[in-house]
Amino acid sequence: MREPGEEYFSNLSDRERAIFEGGISMGALFHQFVGTPVNLETVEVLEGAIAESIKLQPAIRDAEVHIDRGMVREAAGEFGYVSLTGEMLRVRLDVEYGSSRITICLEYLDELRYPLMYVKD
Amino acid sequence: MREPGEEYFSNLSDRERAIFEGGISMGALFHQFVGTPVNLETVEVLEGAIAESIKLQPAIRDAEVHIDRGMVREAAGEFGYVSLTGEMLRVRLDVEYGSSRITICLEYLDELRYPLMYVKD
Amino acid sequence: MREPGEEYFSNLSDRERAIFEGGISMGALFHQFVGTPVNLETVEVLEGAIAESIKLQPAIRDAEVHIDRGMVREAAGEFGYVSLTGEMLRVRLDVEYGSSRITICLEYLDELRYPLMYVKD
Amino acid sequence: MREPGEEYFSNLSDRERAIFEGGISMGALFHQFVGTPVNLETVEVLEGAIAESIKLQPAIRDAEVHIDRGMVREAAGEFGYVSLTGEMLRVRLDVEYGSSRITICLEYLDELRYPLMYVKD
Repeated sequence: MREPGEEYFSNLSDRERAIFEGGISMGALFHQFVGTPVNLETVEVLEGAIAESIKLQPAIRDAEVHIDRGMVREAAGEFGYVSLTGEMLRVRLDVEYGSSRITICLEYLDELRYPLMYVKD
Repeated sequence: MREPGEEYFSNLSDRERAIFEGGISMGALFHQFVGTPVNLETVEVLEGAIAESIKLQPAIRDAEVHIDRGMVREAAGEFGYVSLTGEMLRVRLDVEYGSSRITICLEYLDELRYPLMYVKD
Repeated sequence: MREPGEEYFSNLSDRERAIFEGGISMGALFHQFVGTPVNLETVEVLEGAIAESIKLQPAIRDAEVHIDRGMVREAAGEFGYVSLTGEMLRVRLDVEYGSSRITICLEYLDELRYPLMYVKD
Repeated sequence: MREPGEEYFSNLSDRERAIFEGGISMGALFHQFVGTPVNLETVEVLEGAIAESIKLQPAIRDAEVHIDRGMVREAAGEFGYVSLTGEMLRVRLDVEYGSSRITICLEYLDELRYPLMYVKD
C-alpha cells in the first residue's frame, strides 16, 4: 500500500520508508502518552486506546501495546494510581510500506537504563 | 470521601478543594491528550480512555468526554486522521470533596476563540 | 485584573477563581512537559520555557520552575539524558484574580509517593 | 559517532539507522510539544527549548525549530495566547550516524492538509 505525498519520498527505498514511519510512530506514541494517569483497573483500556491511535499513522499495520502491571501496582502511590512512564511500556508495531514489512519494538532495557526502540526483521 | 495528604489542605474549604482538584484534572486532560491521532473509527475508544484516565485523579467521581465527530471528519487530511485539538473537546467532570459536589466543564467558545474551562454548580 | 468570559464565572468568588485557574495551570504544566528529554546542559532552558509558557495562562502572575539536578544526573541512562518525570519537578505559581492572591505549589512528597499540588496562602 | 546498544541495530545500515533515529525524534518533538501555550512574546524561548530537548536524542546533531509568528498572532483568542499546533511548526533535524548524514524536515503542507515529515538528502 502507498501513501499520499509520494513525491517527498522518492529518495527512500520501501524499507527505508517503513523504518522512517515506524520510528515516527514510536516516538509519537511515547511522548503522547507518557504521563497519563493509570492503575490496574484502567490499564487495559489505555493499552487499547494507545494501539488504536497509533495504528492511524501512515504505514502502521498493527500495534501491540503492553503496560507492565507489576510496575503499575508498585509505583501507585497513596492516591492509587501513577503517571505512565517509558519503563512500563512494551510495544510492537508492524509496519508495511510497498514491498517491505518490518517490526519496530520498544522495550525498557535495564542494562542501558533506557527505553530502547529498535527494528526487528 | 477524603483524600491522603489532608494536612496540606487545611486552608481550603470542601468547595475550594473540589474547585482546585477539578481544575487540575481538566488542565491535565487537555494537555495530556491534545495531539493524539484520531479519526471516526477510533474516536469512541479515545473518549473512553480519556474518561477512565481522568477519573483516577483525586476527587473526580465521574467524567464525560465528547469529541466532535463533525470536526474530526472535516479536519482529517489526506492521511485519514487528525491530531486532537482543544476545539474538538467537550468535557464534563463531576467532582466531589467532603460535602461539596460541583461540575467542571470544558467547551470551545467561538466568541472567545478559546476552549473555556468553568465551574457549573 | 479581570479576564474575558466573566459571565461564566459569576458563581465563583475571587479566591475560588484563583484556586481554579491555579489548578488548571498546574495540571497543564505537569501533563504537557512530563516526558520531555532533559539533561544537565538543557535543564535551565527547559525550566525557563515551562515558566514562560505557563505564565500565559489566565491569572498566572509569576511562575518558578525547578527541576532537580541530582535526579536528572542519576536517572540519565547510557544515552546521557532522561525523560522529565513528576518527581523531578518543584513548581510555584503566583496566581492573582481580582482581590485574591494565592500561591500554588507542586512538590514530590516521599511519604505519599506522589507529586502533590496544593495551595499556600 | 556510535551510540550504546549497538547489538540491537546490527540489522540496519548507517543510513537506515539515521532515518530511524530521525523519525523517532521528529515524532517525539511533535507529540511532546503540541498543546503548549504560546504567544509572540514566548515563541522564541519555546523554539529554543524544543531544539535543545530534541538535540539530546540519539544521533541528532542539530535542530532548527521555527514556529509561524503569523499563525500564532491570528490564532490567539481573547486570552492572548494559543495552544501550539502542528500547522505552526517548521522543523529541520540534522542526523548523523556512522558514515551517514541526512536531514529530516517537518512542514505543514496545505495540499495534503497534513504536517508532513520527510527525509531530505
